[in-house]
Formats: sequence, structure tokens, C-alpha cells
Amino acid sequence: MKRIGMLTSGGDCQALNAAMRGVVKGLSENVDELEIYGFLNGYKGLIYGDYRLLTSADFSGILTKGGTILGSSRQPFKQMRVPDANGLDKVEAMKSTYYKLRLDCLVILGGNGTEKTANLLREEGLNVIHLPKTIDNDIYGTDVTFGFQSAINIATDAIDCIHTTAASHNRVFIVEVMGHKVGWLTLYAGVAGGADIILLPEIPYDIEKVIAAINKRTKAGKGFTILAVAEGAISKEDAALSKKEYKEKVAKRKYPSVSYEIADRIFEETGVEVRVTVPGHTQRGGSPCPYDRVLCTRLGSAAAQAVMDEDYGNMIAMINGKTKRVPLGEVAGRLKTVDPDCQMIKEAKRIGISFGD
Amino acid sequence: MKRIGMLTSGGDCQALNAAMRGVVKGLSENVDELEIYGFLNGYKGLIYGDYRLLTSADFSGILTKGGTILGSSRQPFKQMRVPDANGLDKVEAMKSTYYKLRLDCLVILGGNGTEKTANLLREEGLNVIHLPKTIDNDIYGTDVTFGFQSAINIATDAIDCIHTTAASHNRVFIVEVMGHKVGWLTLYAGVAGGADIILLPEIPYDIEKVIAAINKRTKAGKGFTILAVAEGAISKEDAALSKKEYKEKVAKRKYPSVSYEIADRIFEETGVEVRVTVPGHTQRGGSPCPYDRVLCTRLGSAAAQAVMDEDYGNMIAMINGKTKRVPLGEVAGRLKTVDPDCQMIKEAKRIGISFGD
Amino acid sequence: MKRIGMLTSGGDCQALNAAMRGVVKGLSENVDELEIYGFLNGYKGLIYGDYRLLTSADFSGILTKGGTILGSSRQPFKQMRVPDANGLDKVEAMKSTYYKLRLDCLVILGGNGTEKTANLLREEGLNVIHLPKTIDNDIYGTDVTFGFQSAINIATDAIDCIHTTAASHNRVFIVEVMGHKVGWLTLYAGVAGGADIILLPEIPYDIEKVIAAINKRTKAGKGFTILAVAEGAISKEDAALSKKEYKEKVAKRKYPSVSYEIADRIFEETGVEVRVTVPGHTQRGGSPCPYDRVLCTRLGSAAAQAVMDEDYGNMIAMINGKTKRVPLGEVAGRLKTVDPDCQMIKEAKRIGISFGD
Amino acid sequence: MKRIGMLTSGGDCQALNAAMRGVVKGLSENVDELEIYGFLNGYKGLIYGDYRLLTSADFSGILTKGGTILGSSRQPFKQMRVPDANGLDKVEAMKSTYYKLRLDCLVILGGNGTEKTANLLREEGLNVIHLPKTIDNDIYGTDVTFGFQSAINIATDAIDCIHTTAASHNRVFIVEVMGHKVGWLTLYAGVAGGADIILLPEIPYDIEKVIAAINKRTKAGKGFTILAVAEGAISKEDAALSKKEYKEKVAKRKYPSVSYEIADRIFEETGVEVRVTVPGHTQRGGSPCPYDRVLCTRLGSAAAQAVMDEDYGNMIAMINGKTKRVPLGEVAGRLKTVDPDCQMIKEAKRIGISFGD
Repeated sequence: MKRIGMLTSGGDCQALNAAMRGVVKGLSENVDELEIYGFLNGYKGLIYGDYRLLTSADFSGILTKGGTILGSSRQPFKQMRVPDANGLDKVEAMKSTYYKLRLDCLVILGGNGTEKTANLLREEGLNVIHLPKTIDNDIYGTDVTFGFQSAINIATDAIDCIHTTAASHNRVFIVEVMGHKVGWLTLYAGVAGGADIILLPEIPYDIEKVIAAINKRTKAGKGFTILAVAEGAISKEDAALSKKEYKEKVAKRKYPSVSYEIADRIFEETGVEVRVTVPGHTQRGGSPCPYDRVLCTRLGSAAAQAVMDEDYGNMIAMINGKTKRVPLGEVAGRLKTVDPDCQMIKEAKRIGISFGD
Repeated sequence: MKRIGMLTSGGDCQALNAAMRGVVKGLSENVDELEIYGFLNGYKGLIYGDYRLLTSADFSGILTKGGTILGSSRQPFKQMRVPDANGLDKVEAMKSTYYKLRLDCLVILGGNGTEKTANLLREEGLNVIHLPKTIDNDIYGTDVTFGFQSAINIATDAIDCIHTTAASHNRVFIVEVMGHKVGWLTLYAGVAGGADIILLPEIPYDIEKVIAAINKRTKAGKGFTILAVAEGAISKEDAALSKKEYKEKVAKRKYPSVSYEIADRIFEETGVEVRVTVPGHTQRGGSPCPYDRVLCTRLGSAAAQAVMDEDYGNMIAMINGKTKRVPLGEVAGRLKTVDPDCQMIKEAKRIGISFGD
Repeated sequence: MKRIGMLTSGGDCQALNAAMRGVVKGLSENVDELEIYGFLNGYKGLIYGDYRLLTSADFSGILTKGGTILGSSRQPFKQMRVPDANGLDKVEAMKSTYYKLRLDCLVILGGNGTEKTANLLREEGLNVIHLPKTIDNDIYGTDVTFGFQSAINIATDAIDCIHTTAASHNRVFIVEVMGHKVGWLTLYAGVAGGADIILLPEIPYDIEKVIAAINKRTKAGKGFTILAVAEGAISKEDAALSKKEYKEKVAKRKYPSVSYEIADRIFEETGVEVRVTVPGHTQRGGSPCPYDRVLCTRLGSAAAQAVMDEDYGNMIAMINGKTKRVPLGEVAGRLKTVDPDCQMIKEAKRIGISFGD
Repeated sequence: MKRIGMLTSGGDCQALNAAMRGVVKGLSENVDELEIYGFLNGYKGLIYGDYRLLTSADFSGILTKGGTILGSSRQPFKQMRVPDANGLDKVEAMKSTYYKLRLDCLVILGGNGTEKTANLLREEGLNVIHLPKTIDNDIYGTDVTFGFQSAINIATDAIDCIHTTAASHNRVFIVEVMGHKVGWLTLYAGVAGGADIILLPEIPYDIEKVIAAINKRTKAGKGFTILAVAEGAISKEDAALSKKEYKEKVAKRKYPSVSYEIADRIFEETGVEVRVTVPGHTQRGGSPCPYDRVLCTRLGSAAAQAVMDEDYGNMIAMINGKTKRVPLGEVAGRLKTVDPDCQMIKEAKRIGISFGD
């Protein structure tokens, strides 16, 4: 008899259900007796013992379904050691639920923060397996995370739609893509969508160079310019500020995000109409794309094998096209960012894309 | 020999090219000698004599292409009689271009404003045919405008994406749909996307009733609520203001749009996290959907027949599934709005959708 | 207390679930006590008393889900009066189930055959309401059926995909579209996809004219031609045969369908490579498009009102943009076909589309 | 001054234009004087000197456009050394065109056959660069080919559509996926689409095991089964035949493809209705997906760098997320097939997918 706990934590994304289906199908086919405890709303369910016993019927037909059948919530790692309103120690509470249900292990789907908590639970002696979920693709130790390609598709769709309207009206358009700390999503959607200028958190921009890139296009007779701008894009000046100074500056900002600020500057200096589009949370939603479904089915199946092997404490990663177990202790807490000098940036620059640097 | 001028004016939308292809294919197959003058960037091209002679190659492969190969611009009707910076009378300039090129007629694709100018040109003695383009579906005298269904599809996609994330996080989500004066797009996308609350310019909302509708869902165990809110949604109090007072109030508004204001109020009164998504200009872009391609092919072909019949001064409308010539004089300047008591609103209310009234 | 039976019968299509959701939401909001009996697999469930009591949870999240949660099966009208293998009279069995469960009415979703049986049940004294479902759009008495637009979208997608490959290879491509008896789907998908030649059951084709249309394109320098051919497309010679002769001829046919036969003839006479694509059952599947979701929500809500009004014996139709109750006795058994002289065919011909006649 | 020849050869696929755009943009930004000779219809254009001088306008807006602006044709490698109808030696003719135009190099986009000819031209002393195009993903020396992911998406869409109809009708459905010699596309689309049984050319199937897998599902209460079958799927008996015997058997086959044969056998042994769907050429068509657009932009940009480095004789591959130059002499003529014992097959089997072996 295997008793498996499962939870999805952090911002949702498109293939969480597909990944859980992979785990459960992988186990059901190979383990005679199986109990799956689905904790509701992320770590919250584990803390407060809020769960549902899941049957294979729960996993039927969810391969293509976005969101998560378990619900999710954000439980910041930093607050895991802070007692809750009733004085409950959250970590001890999670351990208590785990032992009370005599779980063999926890399969935890989530991003960077989730992974840190998973690693903490591992250090506390629980058997955990982590599946790397995030549209941000910023989890260290795996080539790719699930949700990433589906989010690229949605952000690229937005850029594609904007392309026709930009071309018809000779305007500058900014599409703001999700990503506060890392620019993977903006980079891939920007290249896929044929953006002319791409601004990433990892490459602070010089607004003059951005404007120069627009003017270059205008001179070449191209009436419109499309910018793909990460939520966390930052100017060279702002990047030079201390964290505290920057926070203060952001707090004073007139606009909901940096894109509007950039838009203003461009309009001031070029006189061309600038429009901002913010696809926002749509980037996390909808049905997972086939790429993510394959990825999740493979990661889920590999996680099932790890459970059967009783090999715990790992993230199941995809590296060079193969699933692999990577010790959480080696990767938790590390961020995978875009290297400004990487090959893909060079390739993008070679075809004329400006990164404003 | 037929000499036809063509232009696309106002905000672009998805099936302008498909409609122009319909006109030109309809003429090319039936008129031996044909010259098509494509005026660039809407009425601007007609005013300043900026055009390209188009060949059938220009219309090959554009059935599925968004935007407009002629470019567009907004030329407010109100300013048509106001001389330009160089003292040029725009109406006289347009007439002059028309006569200089010895055009048989102008085929004009555009929305309400465009139609008013088209009607003015008709009154000035030019032969015009109007094709009703707008994602807003607010042109009087036709059951449907082109661009509308394509825009519904994009806005509905956004709501669909939001659905999975809302359901996973137990949040309230607002999707802001285009439409400052009329709510057709919001109504259709809202119903298609399964929105729980739909707010339209035509039905001023009572925020207490909006919140009651959310609370009703919460009590029924439904953790999330989705609102489809038109850009021009207006509260009962604001609707009671004079136009001037309202303008002043909007100018002072802290937020870029009413959706954020509504979000704040909901959060204040329910304590539930509210997120706003603004698909914005993506709603005008991308490839036209098959519905719009059929519509535009039919309208375009019907316009070609009107040219061959030398029957001018009409909008080509779609009424009860049939294309029909509707005199511009009867429809220009009139807006088609959502009747708060219409059958569809009743049907939507019957299944539990709240309009906040 | 209302006791409603519901079933979906015949070939499935995309918005069956959306329609049932509309009915049930419409009733749930307005009727205090409600029991919904969902009969499984169409009339079979009614005959053999195979049903599930449905709760509103069954209808949550199904607006966008293809297929039918009740299952379906084909139960030919002709065999309704033929006893089953055990000597059971099917009509009496259905009545017996109806009375045993003390149903107030049956809401029946299906196409032409389904409607005939629904009408039979009406004549036998049962309270029935019919919702017009079919991708074929051939139900008399309604402007449009649900499933039609979703199927158009899929068939058009297929033609769009073929377009790029046809253009690259200078080939003739045939896309075979569903529709044995009527050509609505082929006509709309053909026009939307920019097909050059459209062959419908209602307009017998002359193969020489088809080939002439291809040659005309070749002469005009267009290297490829796309044909949208209905499953039931028929040549003038075959149309002249008696039904029996035609059946015999079809039985002897070397190919799975007429498209291959046409392909052979074209190749023989032009020497150009011809490829056939058969999207087949994909045309019934997948998520309903926003158009169909609006349509079904409205029809479902209108059906709910009819139940509340205890007004039975009707199909809920969509006529000139309004839902309407149409007596089954007036429409059952009648087919809505494409009139070869209708406005849309003329418009299509005007832009150069050949119908091979 | 750089003089570059470019051609696309073999079956078309979705991102050929995106790849060419990458090459040309990469060069245009970095090479002062540039002449691009676009040979029409693959090697045919090179043989007969049929080309167009391309400008950057030709590459504007084609990132999202399927097919190839240069046209394509199949020119089997085996016949390259066979003189044409007029006695012309094709290889010498290609060299002659190359030298007459004083080309610096040829950029050749194509699959395995194309690569062999490219390698031959290299051996003959021409400067060539090969970009690996094929929906089949069977080119040795690169992790992935362009067109593959776009084709997966289309084939998966087809399976998705079939899923809803299969589930509603309790039928067995076969979706026939492109791939005569290799099963990559079927494997990925099958896993992404949630197929229950996947049959590949690399894993000969035992029909009894296929039927056993269907029966297992039926016993588990699952009314339907979906098979993803490669065009080149082969039974164990047929795999045991000599190539000649097999060809003879295929020639006698009653059906257009193996899928129909499998369908018949399943029906005979289970009595369940089986339907076959053949998406066919649609799998090559339509707009490239974002994944392929990124891939092609990177490969194209890397090819541009190779031209600037005057480093010829390579395929530009994608290996472990990096573009890389791989000597044609090492890879031409080798096929990349699915290893029946590879990790992904094991992962798929673990979750219960049957490969009929």
C-alpha cells in the first residue's frame, strides 16, 4: 500500500493537472494499492489537514484542463516559520498532517518559493518530490518548467494580434509580458512574436537606445514598432539604485507598471502614439499546449517511478530531453535567469532585435 | 472602364482585408476594365491624394490577414469641416481628389464616424458605398458588423483563460472588454465566456448589487466570480451626472479605467482579492474568424454588385441573413445600442447572470 | 416541484453541454424544487430507463466542454416502431419510463431524426421540447443549429492549413467536408477558407466544368486550386440515376468517398497532382466556439422559460436573432437544404467561386 | 558583397519562411552589400536557373506565414545523377547555376533527402549550409527539426476533437498521424492527446495485444479507446516479411492505409464501432507555432553567422538548447528513429499507454 500526498502551490499555470495525472496514472498502473491525498489550496491544505481522497476518476479527462483541481494559494516561504494567527507553527503542522496520515511521500508541484518550502520539509525529514511548475521558467536545475511554453503561446498570440493593428495604424505598441524577476517568457514570446525591441529584467535598458531603435525603424520606412516588455524591465538608472531607493521610487510611480512609463517617454521623444497592452493573468490560463502536456506526462511518470523506487528529496527535471532526479538541496533557493551574453540573446541581436542596452 | 476608390477608416479590425478582397474579386470577375485606387490611411489618403493603384495580386492571400493593407487613421467627423493646419478644406480636398481621378465611386469601410463622413460625401454629390466595420457592432441598420465576431472570440478566449486561474485561486476577476459607448462585445463575450456578472454602458450598475451577486456565489460554495466589464460601464450615480460633471470626475480618477475602481470597491466590501485583466487592442487584431470571413465576402460581393448596378449612397448591411442596401441618409449618425429589456438580456438574467441593476 | 428529463441523441456535436447548462441554469434560478433526469446514450436511456439524477455540479464548467456528458447514440426513427430483440416496443417503453418517473417534460437535444422521434412522442401525448443540434444546419424552422459554427471553424482551419501547402507545391487539394445530404457546412467553410471550387449535394456538378475552373486558374498563373467537397457531392450523371441505381454504383466504388473519384478525374485530365484531406469526425469535436456558446445559452434559457410556461411540443429556434417556439408538428421531418439560387450562392459565384454547374 | 542562394526543398512545413527570415535578417543587419537569390520550387530552380532576387520586403511579415514563399518540390536524391528528359545532368546544372551567379554559398532548407543532395553539392565543391526542416523530426544530428512542434499541435488538436466525440459515443477511434518511416510525430501527438494506444513504425504491433488493451479499458468501465497510429505502423507479421513481399502485400491492400486494416480487425474481434480520421496534409500547414518560430529564428540567425564566418558544409542543428554547426558529411544519409527502449517510451508505458508490443 502506497499513501501519497499531493499539492499544487503558488500561482497556477496551465499543465498542473496534466502533471498530476501523469503521477497518478504512473502509480495506478504499477502499484496495487494506492491512496492519493489531495491537499487543497497548496500548503494551506497540508497545514490545516484539508484534503480529499482522490480516485482515478478525478484524473480522467484533466490532461487538457487548465488550472488545478486541487486549488492553490501563495504561502510565502519566509512566513513558513512565522506562527499563524492562532499561534500554530506551520512547519510542525505540516509534519503533523504528514505523519497522522502515514504518508509515504509528498508530491509537490510549484515554483521557486514552493521548492524552498519543499526542501525545508525534506530537511525536516519528510519524503518529498518536487515537480517544477512556473510560466517563468526560472527554476534552477531543469532546462524547462511546465507552463512556460503554454504561456509563451498566449503572450505570442497577443503580440500577433497587436501586429496587425500596429501595422495598420503606424503606432508603437508595448506588450507587457509576465515576469517580475526573470525575462525568459518575454524573451521567447518577443522572438516568437517578431518584437522589434525586447526589455528584460536581466538587461537594464537605456531609454535613449530604445528610442534610437524606434527611430531607426522609422527611417527605414517601417511605420510601427513593437516592444515586448517584461513586468520587471528596469532602466539603467533604476538598476543603479539601492533596493530600498528603487522600492520607494516604484511606490511613487504614477502608473500601474513600467510599460506605461516607457510609453510616456517614447511619446515625448518621438511624438508617435504609443499603446500598452497587458495580457496579464491570461498568460497563466487556458488549456495546456501539447508541448506542456508531453512534458508533464513525462515528469509525472518519472515522479511515479521515483515513488516506486522510494527515491525522495529530488526535483524531477528535464535535462537535454531526459527526465532526471536532481537533489533539492542542490537547487532550492537558486534562480535561473537569462544570461545577457547567452547564445540566444546574441542570435536575437544579430537579426536586429534591440534589448535597449 | 470602372474606376473605384477604396479606403479603410477608423480603428482597424480583423476582416477589413477580407471585405476588400470580396469587393475586388466581385468586380474583377464581372467588369472587363477596372482600376482600383487604394487611398492610404483612411480619409487622410483621400484628402491629400495619397493612393496606390491596386492589382489583383494585392488581394491574393489576404482573406485571413488581419489589419488593413491600406492602413487606417482616425479622422473625426467633427473636424472634417475644420480646415487643416495649412488652411485646406478637407471636404473640398476629398471631392477634388475624387473628381481629379474621375472615380465612379468610393467604397468606404469603417464604423459610425466613418459612416457620417461617407454620408457627408454623398450629400456633396459623390458616389459612395459603405461597408459596416467595427468590433463594437453599434452600426444602426445592420444586424451585425464585421470584426464583431472575431473580437468576441478574442475576448472570450481571455475570459476562458481567466476561468482556470480564478477557479484555482478563489479570486474575483474582472476582464475589461472594449466598448466605450455600447456593450455588445461585452454582452456576447460575457455570455460566451460564462461570466457571472456583466456590466454594460447601457445598464448603469449599482455596486451594492454587484457585491450582492458575488456574495450569493460565495454562499453557494463557488469560490470565484468573473466579471465582464465594458470600458464604458457606468455606475448609477455616475449615470445621473451631467456629461460635464462626469468628464470632470473621470479626469480625476486615480485609475486608468472603471474596472480598477470596481475592483477596489469589491475588495473593500468583500475582502476577496480582485484582479483586473485588460486584453485591450488584441481584441482588434489577429486573423478574422470564419464567421467574419463569410460575412465580409458576402458584403464585399454585394458591394461589387451595387457598383455594377451603379446604385450608390448605401450601406451594405446584413439583415436576417441577407445582404441589403440601406440608404446612408437613413442610418448615418445613429447608434445601435443594447436594449436593457431585450430578449437576450432577459435570457442571460434567467440563467443567473447579474447586470448589477 | 419540476421533474425534467433530458437526453442528447444522434451524432454528437460541440455545444450540447452548453445547451443543457442553459436549460438547467435557467430552471435552477427560477424553480424552487427541481429534479433533472439525465437519460444516458440518447433515446436508449429513455427506452431502457437508464438515467442519472443530475445536480447543478454536473453542469458546472461544462460550457466549454465538447461532446455530451449524457452520452449519445443513433436510434433511427424508422426503427422506433420496430420491437427490439426482446420484443419490447420502444415507443411504449419510452412512454412507460416517462410516466413511471412522473416527468413534467422531456428536453431533447438532437438533429432531424431525433426531432422526428420527439414529434412522435408528442403525438403520443408526452410533453417535449426540442433543441436543434447538428453541425449540418439542416433543421427546418430555425435559421441556425448549434454545432454548425464550431464545425465551420474546424473545417475552415483544415482548408487554411491546406492553403499554405497547396500554394507551396502547386497542387490541387480537395478538402472533404461533412454533409451527406446538405451542403451548408461545405458552403460556409468553403467561402470562409477561400476555396476556389465548392461542390454541394444540392448542386450536381459537371466534372468538365470543374476541370475548366482549374484550368482557368492555371492560365491566370495561379499554381494551385482548392476544392471544398461535401461528402454527398454528386455528379450530374449520378444525380440522374434512380436511388437504387445510385446506391449500387456507390457500393461498387473503388474509393471510400466521392472526393477520391473527383481527384482521379482531375489528375487524368490535367496531369496535376491532387491530394485529398478528410478532417472527418474532428468536425464534430472539440470545444464549442463562442458563437455556439451564446446560441446554446440563449436556446437553453428559452427552453427553461418554455418549461416554466408549461408550453410544450415546440422546437426552440433562433429566427432573425430571436429565440422562438416553433411547433414540432410544423417542422419535424422537413429538411432545410441549400437553395442553388439563393443569395449567398450568387454572391459566391460573383467573386469567381465555381460550383461546377 | 555577399551573394547568397536560398532554396526550400521537399514536402513543405510550417516554419520555412520564419527560418529564411532569420537568415536574411541576420545577414542584412551585418553585411553591407547583400544579394539573395531565391531559387523557385526547390532544387528545380537551381537546376534550371529559375530564381528571383529577393529584397528585405519579401521577408517582412512572413514570420507567421506557413508554406514557403519560394515554393518547393520533391527532387529525389536517387534521380539527381539521372539525366533529365533533355539529357541534362542535374548536378552539373546546379553547379553551373551556382558558378554563373557567383554565389558565395547556398542555404538549403529541407529534410533528409534534401540533406543528401546538399551533401553531394558540398562534395562537388559548393559552399552549402543546411537547415533541418521536417515535421517528421527524423534528421540525425539535431535534437529537433522545425515543423515538428507545429505538426504535433495540429495532430494533437485532431485527437482532442476526437476525444469528445469518442467519449460521447463509446467508440474506438483511430487518428492516423503522418510518418511513414519514423514515429516521432505520432509518439508526441499521441502522448499529448492522451491516446490510449500508440502504434509506431519502430515498434511492430501485435494486433492481439492491441485488442487486449482495448478490452482492458472496456473492463475498467471506459467506453472508448483512442489509437494514434503512424502512417507507417506495421504489424509483427508484416515486419517479418522481406521488403519485396511487404510491398506486394501493401499493393494488394483493400484500404488506403494500414489504419483501416487495423480498424477492421478491431471491429471483427470486439464488435465495437471503429472510426478512422486522417488529418493528412493539414499537419504540414497553417501558421508555425511560437516554438517553431523561436527555433527557426535561432537557426536562421546562426546560419547567417556561419555565412559571415565563411564556415560551410554544415547543418545548423539545435543540440541541448544551443545552435551548433554539424558537418554534413557526418550526418547526411542517416535517419533518426524512435528507440523502442528510450526513456520516453518507458514513461509512456508506465502510465498505461500500449504500443501493441
